[in-house]
Amino acid sequence: MDQAMRMMEMHSKDMSMMDMEMDMSMMQECIEACSACEQTCTMCAGSMMGGDDMMACSAMCMNCADMSNTMMRMMLRPNGMKREPMMSMLQAMMVMCMACADECMKHADMSDDCRMCAEVCRQCADSCKKMLDSMGPMS
Amino acid sequence: MDQAMRMMEMHSKDMSMMDMEMDMSMMQECIEACSACEQTCTMCAGSMMGGDDMMACSAMCMNCADMSNTMMRMMLRPNGMKREPMMSMLQAMMVMCMACADECMKHADMSDDCRMCAEVCRQCADSCKKMLDSMGPMS
Amino acid sequence: MDQAMRMMEMHSKDMSMMDMEMDMSMMQECIEACSACEQTCTMCAGSMMGGDDMMACSAMCMNCADMSNTMMRMMLRPNGMKREPMMSMLQAMMVMCMACADECMKHADMSDDCRMCAEVCRQCADSCKKMLDSMGPMS
Amino acid sequence: MDQAMRMMEMHSKDMSMMDMEMDMSMMQECIEACSACEQTCTMCAGSMMGGDDMMACSAMCMNCADMSNTMMRMMLRPNGMKREPMMSMLQAMMVMCMACADECMKHADMSDDCRMCAEVCRQCADSCKKMLDSMGPMS
Repeated sequence: MDQAMRMMEMHSKDMSMMDMEMDMSMMQECIEACSACEQTCTMCAGSMMGGDDMMACSAMCMNCADMSNTMMRMMLRPNGMKREPMMSMLQAMMVMCMACADECMKHADMSDDCRMCAEVCRQCADSCKKMLDSMGPMS
Repeated sequence: MDQAMRMMEMHSKDMSMMDMEMDMSMMQECIEACSACEQTCTMCAGSMMGGDDMMACSAMCMNCADMSNTMMRMMLRPNGMKREPMMSMLQAMMVMCMACADECMKHADMSDDCRMCAEVCRQCADSCKKMLDSMGPMS
Repeated sequence: MDQAMRMMEMHSKDMSMMDMEMDMSMMQECIEACSACEQTCTMCAGSMMGGDDMMACSAMCMNCADMSNTMMRMMLRPNGMKREPMMSMLQAMMVMCMACADECMKHADMSDDCRMCAEVCRQCADSCKKMLDSMGPMS
Repeated sequence: MDQAMRMMEMHSKDMSMMDMEMDMSMMQECIEACSACEQTCTMCAGSMMGGDDMMACSAMCMNCADMSNTMMRMMLRPNGMKREPMMSMLQAMMVMCMACADECMKHADMSDDCRMCAEVCRQCADSCKKMLDSMGPMS
């Protein structure tokens, strides 16, 4: 992670040229939150036990893993950042993380994977919300 | 694609049990639009010529390709569909496609890749908008 | 798909400059086989029913979906094609598709998803093998 | 990352039931190496400057980023691990990382991104080689 973060800092000057001001340390935290969310959701989706009532949970975790990866990559491409797509994706990510955390919490008693996954999803939602709030009102 | 679409039809009954009614033929069209968008954006991003003014375009196409793949996969997982995350992701996808098409059109004179990519992005945006409109108001 | 294939044809001249000769229509077929494989594996992985004996099948389908997407994207980037990584990835894709098909066939009696997924995986393995064979011996 | 690693440890007993013995700490190191490789390659691909001679480098970094993500996810799904697909994918990943590092090193003088990316790619290749060596001969 260190090298990516060092590269990100080298590019922080490029970012200030764009149509938005980003807090780099907040964005680094969000990149790590998305990366953690992808990893725990991938594990959680691939480890479901207990039959058919887990199917929604597994499929939602896969959705959340895919969105987390996409969100992370969008923050790793300073040249591609535009205010509107970035903000609407952060918004969608936040909604997905909360929905995935809610579903996982239904099985938290039976599954440590689900309990831990819910926790990481919420942290990711918080981190996306912080970034979104810092970017001003959506037009 | 045929097999995936046949599988989707077999699952249409599962979907009507969920918290939303989906028009299956509209969703199949949207899955294909996202798949086409991922493919053209991936090609366009990997083929940029002409120097530094193309960097934003290439990075935005990569973002659009990743989002298209995520959007497509979310529609291919009937068990994971929830109204709120699905609608906010369709919204984000629509915004990304329009931004990517606008950027690509800046280079349409010089690059056939960009012109064709813009066209496919717009079709994907239209298809997502149609699905979103069919799902009722966002809460 | 049409636009991506038309873009690919425009780039066929770039590809002949590289360290390998590719049969474009064979590659287009392989891109479509990988795309179909990603879609059916994503659906199959997200639709597993019947409890814990399906877990290996679901997780292998997710692996196969991710590899199919990566394989497809590598073929959509003419500028990034190098003989050695391309051949070793085609080889890995072939092995994964056969393993996934074998696992899915264990449940073919109970699950139409698995039966159809196995079929598409085998077609993808065949398509990758054809491309690999056309590229000469691996060094 | 911590939560994913803790989840992985909880599943280490599942893995010993499978057709291979995995060194969990070696695999955790490899997961982190792949994650770092995806992140640096994504940044490097999205930051290329200097015109057309960078196109191969950018496209190879995108390939390497996609393969790294797929490789990482395969290690995060204990239930889906099979010896043959895992080993052939580790082999392909190693070949891709070395090719990407070689290409990036051609521009190391002009680009800090490329120099740092090459370094992370090599670490990832080393980590995959270690895992592959620990898994015995490929059949």
